[in-house]
Amino acid sequence: MYYAVIIAGGSGTRLWPLSRRGRSKQSLRLVGERSMFQYAVDRLAPLFRPEQIYVVTRADQSALLSSQVPELPLANFINEPVGRGTAPAIGLAAIHLRQKDSQATMAVLTADHYISKTQQFRQVLEAAQTIAGEGHLVTLGIKPVSASTGFGYIKQGQSLGLIRDFPVFRVERFTEKPTLEVAQHMLSSGDFSWNSGMFVWQVDRILVEFQNQMPGLYAQLMEVEAGFGNLDAKGVLARVWNRMDEQTIDYGVMEHARDVVVIPVDIGWTDVGSWASLAELMPPDQDGNIFVGPYKEIDTHNTLVFGGKRLVATIGVQDIVIVDSEDALLVCAKNREQEVRDIVERLKTNGDSQWL
Amino acid sequence: MYYAVIIAGGSGTRLWPLSRRGRSKQSLRLVGERSMFQYAVDRLAPLFRPEQIYVVTRADQSALLSSQVPELPLANFINEPVGRGTAPAIGLAAIHLRQKDSQATMAVLTADHYISKTQQFRQVLEAAQTIAGEGHLVTLGIKPVSASTGFGYIKQGQSLGLIRDFPVFRVERFTEKPTLEVAQHMLSSGDFSWNSGMFVWQVDRILVEFQNQMPGLYAQLMEVEAGFGNLDAKGVLARVWNRMDEQTIDYGVMEHARDVVVIPVDIGWTDVGSWASLAELMPPDQDGNIFVGPYKEIDTHNTLVFGGKRLVATIGVQDIVIVDSEDALLVCAKNREQEVRDIVERLKTNGDSQWL
Repeated sequence: MYYAVIIAGGSGTRLWPLSRRGRSKQSLRLVGERSMFQYAVDRLAPLFRPEQIYVVTRADQSALLSSQVPELPLANFINEPVGRGTAPAIGLAAIHLRQKDSQATMAVLTADHYISKTQQFRQVLEAAQTIAGEGHLVTLGIKPVSASTGFGYIKQGQSLGLIRDFPVFRVERFTEKPTLEVAQHMLSSGDFSWNSGMFVWQVDRILVEFQNQMPGLYAQLMEVEAGFGNLDAKGVLARVWNRMDEQTIDYGVMEHARDVVVIPVDIGWTDVGSWASLAELMPPDQDGNIFVGPYKEIDTHNTLVFGGKRLVATIGVQDIVIVDSEDALLVCAKNREQEVRDIVERLKTNGDSQWL
Repeated sequence: MYYAVIIAGGSGTRLWPLSRRGRSKQSLRLVGERSMFQYAVDRLAPLFRPEQIYVVTRADQSALLSSQVPELPLANFINEPVGRGTAPAIGLAAIHLRQKDSQATMAVLTADHYISKTQQFRQVLEAAQTIAGEGHLVTLGIKPVSASTGFGYIKQGQSLGLIRDFPVFRVERFTEKPTLEVAQHMLSSGDFSWNSGMFVWQVDRILVEFQNQMPGLYAQLMEVEAGFGNLDAKGVLARVWNRMDEQTIDYGVMEHARDVVVIPVDIGWTDVGSWASLAELMPPDQDGNIFVGPYKEIDTHNTLVFGGKRLVATIGVQDIVIVDSEDALLVCAKNREQEVRDIVERLKTNGDSQWL
């Protein structure tokens, strides 16, 4: 049986002041009428029944997320006591699925990217499931549209032909976030995809890779699995997760795994990691401005105003991002938006927890 | 007897979004702990008993202003149905005072300027009262500190010597707001003061000037005065004010009046007409920033943040004004702050009255 596992544990500090401790990026309505997490579930509906859709999230985010998708069974929310990176999250989902279905094939999906071509997304997911059935570890690669230094890249190796009209390649290697020069080279070569963080594989196949390549983590997962059904299952998980290191699936497993393939696709994929990347998803007016919420402007250019109920008036400003929330306001130069997370750090350091 | 009349009828649209229809500039706490209007009353306390202090304001602003200074008798608030400029406001105060005291001398004062040297202010007021007792119309001139094009100027003529250590001059002429070139000439000549809009004169003297120079307005004032004590006094005032033109005391009376003198003074006078002028009243930090309310900043320069309860975070911005209010937010380039009134105009035009 096929299952979808949505990894929805990040906090998204670069989207402060909208994203908060109790209100993760995934739970926000950033584009259109639904939250990022609701879109992530919605686009799976034609392929999976609700019982087949699992969510790995942090315990403190679980209630809000589950309230947003009442169609999913509450039991399908797998709650990490704390976030420990993608490898433990995926491993935890895998042992849950193995309990339920020893023949499970899982798609690892994200909730913090926007996908505009959902039909195409579902088609490639079906193709990936087919290949995963042959024992491959499938990664969905995104055809790069710019020399971004914000993503890891995947180098395509030997062609394995077409599956349902999608070309499939062996993965030659994974690379970390590159310098601009390297990114430009990779873009122009045509041999690289962005690493989307979306994977499809058989559960028992990926657990073998965990066992071979991350034996420490695998042992911890086994300890958790052994606790399943016990009265203290939650306590076992908390104790194991408490002493666990942060580990990502890319470096921990994928780079040295056997039989890894990539399907490079164009599914209208956008990382909604920051206010500027969000701006790219909305059509600007003739002055390059995007306004969300009530506004009045005079001579304003290339500016994003992400408001709500309150009126935002701008006069003679350009290249800035203005984000208005109930109790906090951000005014940031567009090319400095990575530093939003530094504001969040300062709030932590200074104990200004009311705005975290 | 001496009386003070505070003219407090303006709306202050350039201080939107803090100033609103129901919350005039005078009623706002812009500097320190008291509102502009409270400061205007406070600084008179050593010279006038509460019964000697009158306020001319608009009917719709009166309740808020009187609640801010409970020490003043409610009857001392003279309410105009609508604002018609300084000449009708002063004329209305004059006929009220004449009813009460045929020998009244009135000081016409403002509530929308900040005066830092209140001791000096009171001393020059006493000197002006002395000269007014000789039948002069006294204007308080402000020694100019820059070639401002935002004020009218007064040219000093023949010296009349010192009164209580203050030099007194006949007024040679009043001038309208000048061009920068003319302002620079006037500043360097040393013969000009800024027109502060503050005057001291005997009530019967100024009413004779109204009669001679603005006979139409004078007749209207007499119509209102004739209604005093009638059951329909308020209705008479409303009908007269309804058909009245806008008229200022400077052009209507002062320019051609007899016996006008000026006392040029330094009383730490600042026009709080706009956000930039308000910024001049507060000490900036080492980066030229002024922050009112909770804030976090990264690489912010020459910026005014006038906040309140909500946190304002700024990153990489300079030369802007940010004003946060309960239901509206302004982000404005510092050199464009005169255009704040255009935002207010647009709100009126578009019927967005909730933000007016």
